[in-house]
Amino acid sequence: MSSPRRPRSPRPFEPEQWQVREEGLHLERLAQSESVFALGNGHIGVRGNLDEGEPYGLPGTYLNGFFESRPLPYAEAGYGYPEAGQTVVDVTNGKLIRLLVDDEPFDVRYGQVDDHERVLDLRAGVLRRDVRWTSPGGSRVRVCSTRMVSLVQRAVMAIEYVVEAVEADVRVVVQSELVANEEVPVPTGDPRVAVALDRPLEALDVRAHDNGVHLVHRTRRSKLTMAAHMDHLWDGPEDTSVESTVYEDVGRTTFIAVVGVGRPLRIVKFVTYGWSSGRTVPALRDQVGAAAAGARHTGWEGLLDEQRRYLDAFWERSDVRVEGDGEIQQAVRFALFQILQAGARSEQRAIPAKGLTGPGYDGHAFWDTEIFVLPVLTYSEPHSAADALRWRQSILPAARARARALRLSGAVFPWRTIGGEECSAYWPAGSAALHIGADVADAARRYVQATGDADFERDTATELYVETARVWMSAGFFDEAGAYRIDGVTGPDEYSALADNNVYTNLMAARNLQLAADAVERHQAVRNRLQVAPEEVVTWRRAAAAIHVPWDEDLGIHPQSEGFTDHERWDFSLTGAEEYPLMLHYPYLQLYRKQVVKQADLVLAMLLRGDRFSAAQKVANFAYYEGITVRDSSLSAAIQCILAAETGHLDLAYDYWGEAALMDLHDLERNTRDGLHLAALAGAWLGAVFGFGGMRDHGPGLLFRPRLPTALRSLGFTIFWHGGKLAVEVDGDAARYRWDDSKAVRFRHYDDVVELRAGEHRTVPIPPLAARPPLEHPPHRRPEHRVSGG
Amino acid sequence: MSSPRRPRSPRPFEPEQWQVREEGLHLERLAQSESVFALGNGHIGVRGNLDEGEPYGLPGTYLNGFFESRPLPYAEAGYGYPEAGQTVVDVTNGKLIRLLVDDEPFDVRYGQVDDHERVLDLRAGVLRRDVRWTSPGGSRVRVCSTRMVSLVQRAVMAIEYVVEAVEADVRVVVQSELVANEEVPVPTGDPRVAVALDRPLEALDVRAHDNGVHLVHRTRRSKLTMAAHMDHLWDGPEDTSVESTVYEDVGRTTFIAVVGVGRPLRIVKFVTYGWSSGRTVPALRDQVGAAAAGARHTGWEGLLDEQRRYLDAFWERSDVRVEGDGEIQQAVRFALFQILQAGARSEQRAIPAKGLTGPGYDGHAFWDTEIFVLPVLTYSEPHSAADALRWRQSILPAARARARALRLSGAVFPWRTIGGEECSAYWPAGSAALHIGADVADAARRYVQATGDADFERDTATELYVETARVWMSAGFFDEAGAYRIDGVTGPDEYSALADNNVYTNLMAARNLQLAADAVERHQAVRNRLQVAPEEVVTWRRAAAAIHVPWDEDLGIHPQSEGFTDHERWDFSLTGAEEYPLMLHYPYLQLYRKQVVKQADLVLAMLLRGDRFSAAQKVANFAYYEGITVRDSSLSAAIQCILAAETGHLDLAYDYWGEAALMDLHDLERNTRDGLHLAALAGAWLGAVFGFGGMRDHGPGLLFRPRLPTALRSLGFTIFWHGGKLAVEVDGDAARYRWDDSKAVRFRHYDDVVELRAGEHRTVPIPPLAARPPLEHPPHRRPEHRVSGG
Repeated sequence: MSSPRRPRSPRPFEPEQWQVREEGLHLERLAQSESVFALGNGHIGVRGNLDEGEPYGLPGTYLNGFFESRPLPYAEAGYGYPEAGQTVVDVTNGKLIRLLVDDEPFDVRYGQVDDHERVLDLRAGVLRRDVRWTSPGGSRVRVCSTRMVSLVQRAVMAIEYVVEAVEADVRVVVQSELVANEEVPVPTGDPRVAVALDRPLEALDVRAHDNGVHLVHRTRRSKLTMAAHMDHLWDGPEDTSVESTVYEDVGRTTFIAVVGVGRPLRIVKFVTYGWSSGRTVPALRDQVGAAAAGARHTGWEGLLDEQRRYLDAFWERSDVRVEGDGEIQQAVRFALFQILQAGARSEQRAIPAKGLTGPGYDGHAFWDTEIFVLPVLTYSEPHSAADALRWRQSILPAARARARALRLSGAVFPWRTIGGEECSAYWPAGSAALHIGADVADAARRYVQATGDADFERDTATELYVETARVWMSAGFFDEAGAYRIDGVTGPDEYSALADNNVYTNLMAARNLQLAADAVERHQAVRNRLQVAPEEVVTWRRAAAAIHVPWDEDLGIHPQSEGFTDHERWDFSLTGAEEYPLMLHYPYLQLYRKQVVKQADLVLAMLLRGDRFSAAQKVANFAYYEGITVRDSSLSAAIQCILAAETGHLDLAYDYWGEAALMDLHDLERNTRDGLHLAALAGAWLGAVFGFGGMRDHGPGLLFRPRLPTALRSLGFTIFWHGGKLAVEVDGDAARYRWDDSKAVRFRHYDDVVELRAGEHRTVPIPPLAARPPLEHPPHRRPEHRVSGG
Repeated sequence: MSSPRRPRSPRPFEPEQWQVREEGLHLERLAQSESVFALGNGHIGVRGNLDEGEPYGLPGTYLNGFFESRPLPYAEAGYGYPEAGQTVVDVTNGKLIRLLVDDEPFDVRYGQVDDHERVLDLRAGVLRRDVRWTSPGGSRVRVCSTRMVSLVQRAVMAIEYVVEAVEADVRVVVQSELVANEEVPVPTGDPRVAVALDRPLEALDVRAHDNGVHLVHRTRRSKLTMAAHMDHLWDGPEDTSVESTVYEDVGRTTFIAVVGVGRPLRIVKFVTYGWSSGRTVPALRDQVGAAAAGARHTGWEGLLDEQRRYLDAFWERSDVRVEGDGEIQQAVRFALFQILQAGARSEQRAIPAKGLTGPGYDGHAFWDTEIFVLPVLTYSEPHSAADALRWRQSILPAARARARALRLSGAVFPWRTIGGEECSAYWPAGSAALHIGADVADAARRYVQATGDADFERDTATELYVETARVWMSAGFFDEAGAYRIDGVTGPDEYSALADNNVYTNLMAARNLQLAADAVERHQAVRNRLQVAPEEVVTWRRAAAAIHVPWDEDLGIHPQSEGFTDHERWDFSLTGAEEYPLMLHYPYLQLYRKQVVKQADLVLAMLLRGDRFSAAQKVANFAYYEGITVRDSSLSAAIQCILAAETGHLDLAYDYWGEAALMDLHDLERNTRDGLHLAALAGAWLGAVFGFGGMRDHGPGLLFRPRLPTALRSLGFTIFWHGGKLAVEVDGDAARYRWDDSKAVRFRHYDDVVELRAGEHRTVPIPPLAARPPLEHPPHRRPEHRVSGG
């Protein structure tokens, strides 16, 4: 952790348009590359582990929503503390294909790797590997594997595995496996890394068939049942023998053949997964068997075709084009691909902070999803955004119970969870972050505004608005002067806690209250069902209008929370470069009571509630908070990018964009091993669209104020809007907007209203910008100056 | 916990002048009476368990400073969190004397208890028991036991045990035991109740001698070694046989005799204890053997004589006389006796919150000691106060290490500890309560002022002042306007946390800084040793003078902390009587952000820094805080008593006095079972001396503003001052002061200066008082109206 935010050198992946490619095999960053090469579809996630299983950085196969419970220990308990935690489980591994070459196990740590390449293909949606290896005994083989997790058939992972001789014939034994309870390395002492679980799965039903096996297991404490099924097709030398066996935690299909040059053994492995808290073992077993039969019927080529078509449509709708920076071009596409993988088929399950790419943060979902990830999905894969919000609706019973436990009204969404129950064991940074309810409401608002999905507004959004609005009415109060105050809560910045009138929280709460009041007037049936009294609506509107927003007259800026600017400024001259992130070197006691900001808080408020700040306030606020923000959270850079761009610091914005976009490809925080930073990935898109595209969606329609940093020649992106596609191309002087839908679209470009009819396009000039003086940053924490990469 | 603060009825102990007597045996309050009947000397503490061991509420034998370590678990860890906790250990039980009566074990749950009385004699310093029992088989015996823990020979407990027949001869077998690792009941779910330890002691050396045994054990994790030795004298029927045996955890001396009417078996048991972290097993074994030889040499009558003489001197110096309320008269003497027992021989060990009377709070010491208990000891047993402060000095190395961990300068004393290391696992109410350093400094100041002990000031107090002052200079800062601010700390009130400029903390810090600055100028050698630079002293004085004290102009009161009065007032109309204490029914999230006060905070500041508040401010502040203080802490009532008295609410003060004084005798918080509330006991004395005696010691000398509530006829107390005794007698109209020392004494009585020479006394009138309108209190939380008891 000692020197974050500097890329590993040499550059791990060369910038390429549509793929992420590793040349050679870099064991020292194996765990990181397993995260980068992870495949998933929101339902299944598999880390990019080597086919043969070892060496590994961190083995991982995950099913969305499948977790084990564990007691949360407290040396000093308190009323309302959550009693149980939830941890994502490394489920039955179906990626495993072991290879014996003339009695030597294929293991890249032994013998000689003559050639090794792995490619994540962003258009095909597959991970390819091509390796030539000479065994310690001198046998030479080539192994080509292609792995995919289907975006179309959500239960299906498939692998094509081809092994052939390079010189002389070799006898190969291929063991294709399903392995439950594989050993997982013990995590580091970093509290942010997930707690490992020891053999969490109990075998319930394991069976071998002709060309495959199934394993059904259940978690010991959470009592969730999962089934995995594998099946194979193959062709190869005539005397190839095939046999399947099964033990309690291992299913294995063994292929034995003598392969020659141009006489390979080719195996297609179909693995299917299912899980349930309610369905029986036979039902689950049959479900995965049926999914496997379906996949076999589609066939390997059929699966590849489906995948390619799905992605073609996605890229056509959602691609971001960057001219002038190949590294970021690649990073933005990688980001979009991984967000799609996290959300495409999550289907009313959470989208965790790391997607399904690793065990980081115990596999929990946070507010990141709504504020960072869902904007991307809303404008590119909107049905996934809707599904993620339906998940919030589905956990309302748990959220209502949590509100009761906290002695609040309405529904309090958990700070961190898999199944819906609060799993945060440190309440000042967990339960006290009440803003999460307003974040959910805002994400619902954005989705409704972007899609016009009236059914969703009626059936889902309104209930979310109302139950979260009710929290604010029990958490705040009208003071003597009539202002509405919300005291003692924690805003986005985790280096402050339990503060009064956090500006972000208050402004988001005000919007939340407004949304609830407006929605119940449109949806009387929902209003009746939720028993919303007329006085309730009146009070919501009153509180929203009277919300208290502190202002520091002397400094001419908004304090992040009441009294924040009265605190001592952190003395950065005493903090060494090696003392970041601060939370690993300073107690909360010190962090909370000083002016030092972990991540965009007031600055995030200026993005999401940009309508509540004047341009001059934004300039002054941004400059002030840049001086005390240390960006110890991966959530911060993208937001700082966007506000830097808005306030005219375009080159600084570009630096932040690079940091957000390359967080995982360059492993800037040194913890990509535990899974991808989905919010930072989303930041790559946010930086493009909200940052340099200058898009804002906080009003009733869209607004664009595009402007490029000097390094970029052009930027293009597409926004999915009410079923149509709005393509935006920006260069140094002008922006070109193209609309493809049959209805007309209206939006603003700076101060002008632009209206486009079907197929129409328009090029409009970008107003000139006065140069801004450079800003002060904490020493060691200015973002790396970005030299356009590739 | 449902309805605290109401006495159990009927009254458990009749009010008597010099004893606490239980008539009959009340098994339903056995655990409470074990705490009330606890004996100790600050080094050894034994609960008032029955001689025969069972039934018990909670067995308990404790050695001051002897603890076991345990890991502190955190579901989410943070930088600087303490890793290990410390828990007081129930050590080898030497109280145990089992009795077999004609083959029936003597157990009050079986057969027939014909008579049972236990008496704690406050002048003799012993616990007497007299029981007549008929066995299920019809044998009748009388057992009289007298138990003492010597205040003079600190290693010694002794028991005289006499058994005789009531009718026919009976054969008795008496097993006098030492038992290690006795079973301890599992504590309740209440987080405040100590965690039990399972068999914490490992046997190292166990040996039987002629008339006794010794057992040497060591704790498994903390590696502390303890030795217990027992020895006996006896006389009885001629054919009495005696034999000693020993096992790993049990040593036993068995007496067999046939006793008749007037032909008893009388046994005197001497038990001695010692422990060490450094001494060897043979050294400890010999140490307890020598102590036992010394006790035998003194003999039973000798021990009783020593004890009586010690207590005669104590009572002459320290008695409080209350005319008009026998219940409180008894309670105040009980309180003084128990405080003496906790402090007399603690000798540079902590005085825990429960003394050595039970396992509550894990046996930890808190700031209670300095602020509540040490004032009592300072004016009645000053050498014990000095010793308790020398303990603080002895743990400075741990406190300096803690300051470094918290990234502060100087020394941060632990919120809770046995051995010196911070054991608090909830930092917002633990480490953040930085006021503890100022509390320690203030206790040292009081001791020095009361005794004139210049050696102590030089050798102990100055170092305490300096190291605690340094904390304030790193925890606070001068703001733009030049005021000195201390942000983000927790004051005494545990229903607020992490607030800015807590008035109590700031005013106590200012005094602490002043003390340090003054002391280093008197003690250059200490100053040099502690490397106090001249600028450091200048800054201490500057900060002390510029300390920021928030003031609410609109309400005309001091907010407890910055912004406190801007918060929503707790809506008491929604809180049922059964929802107290609030912390067991509401999350901290709700408590912290509203105006609701657990315990005197600003009100405590008005006592200890009374010099910084005008009389009008005290009246207004007290009225305001009475309306929002729920007194969910046993620390609160005494302080509210004192300020009620000062602000003229004398009958309310009387009610609070009753609550503080009777906390344990009436088990008002329903947890006396876990040990006595030493601070509440101290409150009985504080209520008398600081409350109705109106004494203040915050200036350079003493001030008295005595005034009695209507129920009391007179109140008398004695203050030990610079080696002399100042006796104060107050009645409705006047106060009489008598001074017995050869030097003259000067003090203030209201606005007058009184000077007395040796042997002189003076009677001065008490000025009349205007009636005050009654105050508002939270419903259900006004103290019980006190009808003068007994």
